[in-house]
Amino acid sequence: MARKRARNEGWGQHDLPAGKEAFPSTRIPPLPPTLPAEESRLRLVIEGIRPLVEDGRFPAKAAVGDMVTVEADVFAEGHDAILCELRYHRLGERRWITETMVPLGNDRWQAGFPAAELGAYRFAVRADIDRFGTWIRDLEARLGVGQDVSVDLVVGARLLREAAARASASDARFLVEVGERLDEAAGLVVGGLVPVEPDLLEVTRSGRLAALARLYRPTGSSVSSKVCSVQVEPELARFGSWYELFPRSASPDPTRAGTLNDVIDRLPYVERLGADVLYLPPVHPIGKTSRKGRDGVPVAGPGDPGSPWAIGSADGGHTSIDPQLGTLDDFDRLVDSARGRNITIALDLAFQCSPDHPWVTEHPEWFLHRPDGTIRFAENPPKRYEDIYPLDFETGAWQELWQALLDVVNFWIGHGVTIFRVDNPHTKPFGFWEWLIASVKVDHAEVIFLSEAFTRPKIMQRLAKVGFSQSYTYFAWRNSKWEIESYMTELTQSPVADYLRPNFWPNTPDILTESLQTGGTAMFVNRLILAGTLAASYGIYGPVFELQEHLGRGDHTEEYAHSEKYSVRHWDLDSPMSLADLVARVNSIRREHAALQRNDTLRFHATDNEQLLAYSKSHHAENRRWTPASDVVVTVVNLDTERTQTGWIHLDLEALGIEEGTSFTVHDLLTNSYYQWEGASNYVSLDPAAVPAHIFSIQPTAFLDPKGRLA
Amino acid sequence: MARKRARNEGWGQHDLPAGKEAFPSTRIPPLPPTLPAEESRLRLVIEGIRPLVEDGRFPAKAAVGDMVTVEADVFAEGHDAILCELRYHRLGERRWITETMVPLGNDRWQAGFPAAELGAYRFAVRADIDRFGTWIRDLEARLGVGQDVSVDLVVGARLLREAAARASASDARFLVEVGERLDEAAGLVVGGLVPVEPDLLEVTRSGRLAALARLYRPTGSSVSSKVCSVQVEPELARFGSWYELFPRSASPDPTRAGTLNDVIDRLPYVERLGADVLYLPPVHPIGKTSRKGRDGVPVAGPGDPGSPWAIGSADGGHTSIDPQLGTLDDFDRLVDSARGRNITIALDLAFQCSPDHPWVTEHPEWFLHRPDGTIRFAENPPKRYEDIYPLDFETGAWQELWQALLDVVNFWIGHGVTIFRVDNPHTKPFGFWEWLIASVKVDHAEVIFLSEAFTRPKIMQRLAKVGFSQSYTYFAWRNSKWEIESYMTELTQSPVADYLRPNFWPNTPDILTESLQTGGTAMFVNRLILAGTLAASYGIYGPVFELQEHLGRGDHTEEYAHSEKYSVRHWDLDSPMSLADLVARVNSIRREHAALQRNDTLRFHATDNEQLLAYSKSHHAENRRWTPASDVVVTVVNLDTERTQTGWIHLDLEALGIEEGTSFTVHDLLTNSYYQWEGASNYVSLDPAAVPAHIFSIQPTAFLDPKGRLA
Repeated sequence: MARKRARNEGWGQHDLPAGKEAFPSTRIPPLPPTLPAEESRLRLVIEGIRPLVEDGRFPAKAAVGDMVTVEADVFAEGHDAILCELRYHRLGERRWITETMVPLGNDRWQAGFPAAELGAYRFAVRADIDRFGTWIRDLEARLGVGQDVSVDLVVGARLLREAAARASASDARFLVEVGERLDEAAGLVVGGLVPVEPDLLEVTRSGRLAALARLYRPTGSSVSSKVCSVQVEPELARFGSWYELFPRSASPDPTRAGTLNDVIDRLPYVERLGADVLYLPPVHPIGKTSRKGRDGVPVAGPGDPGSPWAIGSADGGHTSIDPQLGTLDDFDRLVDSARGRNITIALDLAFQCSPDHPWVTEHPEWFLHRPDGTIRFAENPPKRYEDIYPLDFETGAWQELWQALLDVVNFWIGHGVTIFRVDNPHTKPFGFWEWLIASVKVDHAEVIFLSEAFTRPKIMQRLAKVGFSQSYTYFAWRNSKWEIESYMTELTQSPVADYLRPNFWPNTPDILTESLQTGGTAMFVNRLILAGTLAASYGIYGPVFELQEHLGRGDHTEEYAHSEKYSVRHWDLDSPMSLADLVARVNSIRREHAALQRNDTLRFHATDNEQLLAYSKSHHAENRRWTPASDVVVTVVNLDTERTQTGWIHLDLEALGIEEGTSFTVHDLLTNSYYQWEGASNYVSLDPAAVPAHIFSIQPTAFLDPKGRLA
Repeated sequence: MARKRARNEGWGQHDLPAGKEAFPSTRIPPLPPTLPAEESRLRLVIEGIRPLVEDGRFPAKAAVGDMVTVEADVFAEGHDAILCELRYHRLGERRWITETMVPLGNDRWQAGFPAAELGAYRFAVRADIDRFGTWIRDLEARLGVGQDVSVDLVVGARLLREAAARASASDARFLVEVGERLDEAAGLVVGGLVPVEPDLLEVTRSGRLAALARLYRPTGSSVSSKVCSVQVEPELARFGSWYELFPRSASPDPTRAGTLNDVIDRLPYVERLGADVLYLPPVHPIGKTSRKGRDGVPVAGPGDPGSPWAIGSADGGHTSIDPQLGTLDDFDRLVDSARGRNITIALDLAFQCSPDHPWVTEHPEWFLHRPDGTIRFAENPPKRYEDIYPLDFETGAWQELWQALLDVVNFWIGHGVTIFRVDNPHTKPFGFWEWLIASVKVDHAEVIFLSEAFTRPKIMQRLAKVGFSQSYTYFAWRNSKWEIESYMTELTQSPVADYLRPNFWPNTPDILTESLQTGGTAMFVNRLILAGTLAASYGIYGPVFELQEHLGRGDHTEEYAHSEKYSVRHWDLDSPMSLADLVARVNSIRREHAALQRNDTLRFHATDNEQLLAYSKSHHAENRRWTPASDVVVTVVNLDTERTQTGWIHLDLEALGIEEGTSFTVHDLLTNSYYQWEGASNYVSLDPAAVPAHIFSIQPTAFLDPKGRLA
């Protein structure tokens, strides 16, 4: 009767105006059954699984080589012991692998699995009542106070016989034999008590018996019902130093614009900087219609090259190379040459067209036409971007359009590109990205997508959930100690860390922050060191960054003066202002220190000076256990770019896994100097005119050079 | 091809030992489709809905009269404006009611609905792209800088015509007319610009046009797909003062044990205390076999009455009244008399049996039999409770057993009982409680279940999720400022508050805390005031509490000496030690102050003394808006029961909705004294030998007595 009522009165349409649908995607939950259902008897609850993104709607993320830590709340009513297992497999492999989960306290259980290969993994948490474990725990408690255990021994014998019925022949023999001995002992009641032979007790307590009794236990497990999946991406998705440059400004000859061949010649410099990824703005033909001029003025002068993001001309569209830059062959050689130096080329994916893009005539239905017959250009009223036509993702022909965009990605994958930096992903539907990235990953799990979404936090997060490997962040605008600490804690310690990997950029072609415009060299050094030590992935837009280019357009925006977005520039890489050596030093420290290649172990440490920021990252072979292979890096930055700041750093030794009272050597990797530190509190002094930061490698004394040499 | 691979390689059973099942309840998520699906085009995302318990697996809770606040993250890609609606209905009613949600910033939206009646409510969040809102926003931006808007006017006219096609005849006429005027205006281009008549602008900006354009907008909504439900319970589920007593100790005559009739005679006293709920330990026949003696010794003496929780004898079981206490008629009269004084009787639900319970012979299959033929008694090895047989919830006959237990509840509901305090719910399956409570609520949404689960936090929380209206808590053991602040913040400000309602007990028959054993009168006063002002529901076990009974059994347990659990006691209610007047005062303050009847507005305020705890609760007719009907109570407690403590209280005026710099009167409701406070920081001094706490009612001066009278 109750069920019937629900059907008649749910989700009525009576109040909806004509033409409105009701709630098509909302299920109607059943009312409570009037008779209990069989599954009500399941005793175990599995809740609070991590990592789990939107209840399993999206995969969590890991990189090859990571240990994926899985946790869950698992419990049953009453006092029975519990067995808890993690089961995982890689999609494409037949076998599920089982790991025993260990209790962390407060009904939380944990286990890990290695993200050994690229691709999708699934995992589930499975829990059973541990009848054998409960039995032996209670038996020990009774033996401890000398209670009669005769019935308990018989109960134990039954348990073993039940297990034997499921066991292999040899295991069954052993289980039955122990069971018989327990039965026999139960019969020997003396003075109301049962004397258990030490020998029998030893067998009963043995790991072998426990393992077999559990292996062959009766069914009745609870298994987590949510879809738990993890997408494993290349190590570069977790850790990498990026460098961005405009090919057309890469010419060593001030009388002509740069080409892809000039970029090939620039590779040794990029390698010297220590970059892992070289990211190029779009390399496609640039439109002429409504082309923007120098500094972005609405009308281009005769020599103005236009914005590389206004893609498409009579020379081709998203799968063509701008003839000014070279040919597809040049591009292929660039990708190969870079690979030879362990540099990966990242390409820009800007899904929009100039009015001259071939698609505008070939596929006018992919654009939004206004009542006056014109195609809508990009705008954010009252701002207008007449040189760019957005694609209409809601066009009736959306399936053809989406497929064409996937074809663009596959074209460049065919030319060796494995990293795409995606321009303005937040102006295209989330569903499009989810489909596109998943489609690429089916055959190319090695491909990495970086989301350029300097937009609202929830939208950035959603883009990460739907599949982007990495995301630009608000780092450029986080300056104070409080801002940096709270933002980093959110990025690395909250559930956001399960799916969003930050990539920190102190500058981009669109972002010359006020602090860089006004903060001088110390600010450039600070922002470089913060980005490179706070985030496992970071990048700089050069050579303007290392040359300390800080002239803004002067209109209270974050635009560079004479921005490369609209002009060809020439740069003197040998300028005495160049921070190239420091960039190279920071990147080499990052390569040598595993601690800096991950974000999950980031911890902030107290200081008694608001201008001194202190934080650590750790990497241990085993969880928080020191070995000679352990790597712990403590960074201290003076955020004040004008004055020397001094103060005490109070290290959280427990978080670092260092015993209280230990003394240890700290090695400043920037200056190659050594200090002896003792206990939690140590003094620092940092002069912005010299080096405004320490990057300390720390080792407890026990792991010092056997000769104990200090600088 | 991708799909095929998934089918072949998912969830294999090949590695499972014989007799093990795979992952029966785990769905296999589909691989990404090779062609985009139609629903990928849905642009709106709805996430982070609250209240939502385990993703909708369980209902959230509210009480009649509450305003249920619903929030969600709602956003789309790009820059379009969004329309967001809350739709809700009460199960059993046909119509869904729609409320417009308002943006709180950071893509969070909010609306509320009144929990007007008992029963189950459902709600959903629905979002649309607001094409009209986007259009008018952009139009205004263009008009503001004098851009040509001719095409925009035509676009607007199209929007209105589309809406008109869905509208009623009269609405359609208006929409078409405005559309024609927009088209006409678009034609009047003068000097490259469109002059829009002020009159037309006024109509375009009118609320009527916006409302109609939105009401008749094209379909294409996103609707939250999770099941969002709220169980609305009686006000007593949120707010009530409880009082527990043992009927057999209620006799005014020291020569005989008390009866239900003595409890009827005790009602005026209970009413004077201000109790809303009178909770009685089990009133059923008590077993004789293995009956516990005085102070819980294993063997009862001839006069020992036994524990009321050892239920069942030849006189009957869970639906019988202990003949020592009276008859079912007496019980009915007690319920009626109490109701006449606005006191609700709460009955104990202890689902366990003495060895003499009729079920032991009538339904031996409901108990667990050991290999020696005996029935397993309750134990937590090595502790034994031989006077109690647990029911075997996993018996093969579990459906009959569960139904019999539901029949017990329905029996007492038939005798007017609407509140059940459930003994040890954490030793019975969660699925049992979920089914039992839901089954009761179908016809008796007024029934309240209090969970007595002093167990691990996750288990207490799960019991609340599966349906218990209220839960006992760890309050008895939270003493220091830090303990109280962090525990209360968890209970009132975290998602736990969506489903778990705390009921605070300073003592119970099982719990005489060390602090009460040793803290003297000031501790009794403190614990009473803390319980009564921190939690909207609280209770005391009397008369031992108000008589300051503090003698423990002396064995380092929390047992009372000569506990009423095993003995008949007689109490002198007129003892000079009695705190009855204080209890009455606290309960009358609670009745008069709506702020103390809810938990969600609890806020702690800084003090400069670790022994001074300060917190507030607020109740405003409108959210955080002061009106003369507003009620704000600030409580300050000296946690040090030995020494006077003084210090500054720093009120968070913003949280209280009080303007900085305002002066206001604080009225101490305990002592009926008045103070004039100014600004955030004010001085207090509390002497534990006098009154160790203030309970201040505060009113900004503007709302004082018009004559401005202060004490």
